[in-house]
Amino acid sequence: MTVPTIGVFDSGFGGLTVLRALVARLPQARFAFLGDTARLPYGSKSRRTIARYAAQSAQFLVREQGAEFLVIACNTASALALDAIQEAVPVPVLGVIEPGAEAAHAASQTGDVLVIATDATVQSHAYAAACRARGLNALEKACPLLVPLVEEGWNDHPVTAEVIRIYLAELTAEAAAQGMNPDTLVLGCTHYPLLRPLIERAVPAGMKVIDSAEAAAEAATQLFNAHAAQTTAEVGAEDQIRCFATDSVEKFERLGSRFLERPTGKVELIDLGG
Amino acid sequence: MTVPTIGVFDSGFGGLTVLRALVARLPQARFAFLGDTARLPYGSKSRRTIARYAAQSAQFLVREQGAEFLVIACNTASALALDAIQEAVPVPVLGVIEPGAEAAHAASQTGDVLVIATDATVQSHAYAAACRARGLNALEKACPLLVPLVEEGWNDHPVTAEVIRIYLAELTAEAAAQGMNPDTLVLGCTHYPLLRPLIERAVPAGMKVIDSAEAAAEAATQLFNAHAAQTTAEVGAEDQIRCFATDSVEKFERLGSRFLERPTGKVELIDLGG
Repeated sequence: MTVPTIGVFDSGFGGLTVLRALVARLPQARFAFLGDTARLPYGSKSRRTIARYAAQSAQFLVREQGAEFLVIACNTASALALDAIQEAVPVPVLGVIEPGAEAAHAASQTGDVLVIATDATVQSHAYAAACRARGLNALEKACPLLVPLVEEGWNDHPVTAEVIRIYLAELTAEAAAQGMNPDTLVLGCTHYPLLRPLIERAVPAGMKVIDSAEAAAEAATQLFNAHAAQTTAEVGAEDQIRCFATDSVEKFERLGSRFLERPTGKVELIDLGG
Repeated sequence: MTVPTIGVFDSGFGGLTVLRALVARLPQARFAFLGDTARLPYGSKSRRTIARYAAQSAQFLVREQGAEFLVIACNTASALALDAIQEAVPVPVLGVIEPGAEAAHAASQTGDVLVIATDATVQSHAYAAACRARGLNALEKACPLLVPLVEEGWNDHPVTAEVIRIYLAELTAEAAAQGMNPDTLVLGCTHYPLLRPLIERAVPAGMKVIDSAEAAAEAATQLFNAHAAQTTAEVGAEDQIRCFATDSVEKFERLGSRFLERPTGKVELIDLGG
């Protein structure tokens, strides 16, 4: 009996935080992770371009790697290209936005939530829409400096703490001006879990912090367990994860282990064209 | 008599600082600026990928826009792809590295210079090589947070001042450890001129700050005046600059005017494939 493969896709390697959460929940699965690093960041690109890149990436994971499920571990691609990806491949596809909104719904008492994310994710208002569908009122804010700060390795640095303080002060002031009473903050970018300790210190007392990476991994686990044939096959740790990138393999290997919290192993370079 | 066109190329819109310096020197020329925004940033990509992207962009400016000279207003492309661009088009091509090194050579008394730039530019060691060819000893440092800070609009912000202080303290400590006595700092990224006031406040007293954008514009002006047919034709201000981008036209128009110090006008979207 074959061990099923879950494809996990991101524009870069931030989605490794989702992969980490998935591996912890599904030790019996194999994983193929693709970071489209030649064309990152998606966050500054148009919907049309993002959809094209994401569909190509999804097809690689399904056609070349035999993935039977796809997790789009990229908030921007989930926000702007989930439909395009679902049309491009014949397997179940899960993004990070809906699980993040669902977790916010479970956590919030007041019904008012805050969302921090990249510029493209915020401009799509995908979180606001997913929250609204659950009766929540969401206020979103783009925090474009946080990804570069994580990639610089300043995860626990006074400058990063100050940037987070400024962004959250602006966001909570805006929420107050709108008469909101937010009690939940959604981390709407797969880089942000690495800043979770600093963010938790910066939020107002009692505010819950929702990690969309964790929420997506939990939702994917439920989907996987419901659909996949049960297997007791064992996957050796060295065979469990294969990582692919479209460029910058060396940077991927160097930074990726911070996100995955274990070595990425040898990252394989692939060419999607473009 | 036709008015000659100078093609100016960058991966994004930072190169508009070079265009601004060119327009000030060559009011009688036309300019076609291309920002390959669909594929930025080049700084995190491999030499092979950067060379392919830059060659396509250069061919657009020469073949489609009739550029008779090209200025590569991108340190990363100048560092990694100048040869590939020169092979791809039949017109004179000038990068920003050699003029920056030449200006440092003219400015430095001690022969020891510091260079700040993106990660890819530093890893190429193109500035160090260009300085060495002039008898200068250069120490380079990657400052990956500065571009995002400029793009966030925090050009005169305490966080940016603190990040600059940290980077320069690390760089000058490393220079001292190597027994260097630097008296010149080269801004090796076309975004950095917008931070020049903060950088000048942060450098040790007496250190000269060299802007590679200004240096490249000066060199291009000399090249242009030496080669171009003299003309007294007037170019209307509205016809002087045409801007093209491969994506994110709206962001280009919004941020570009900060770099150009005047409106970019309508930015035209083009498709280079990929």
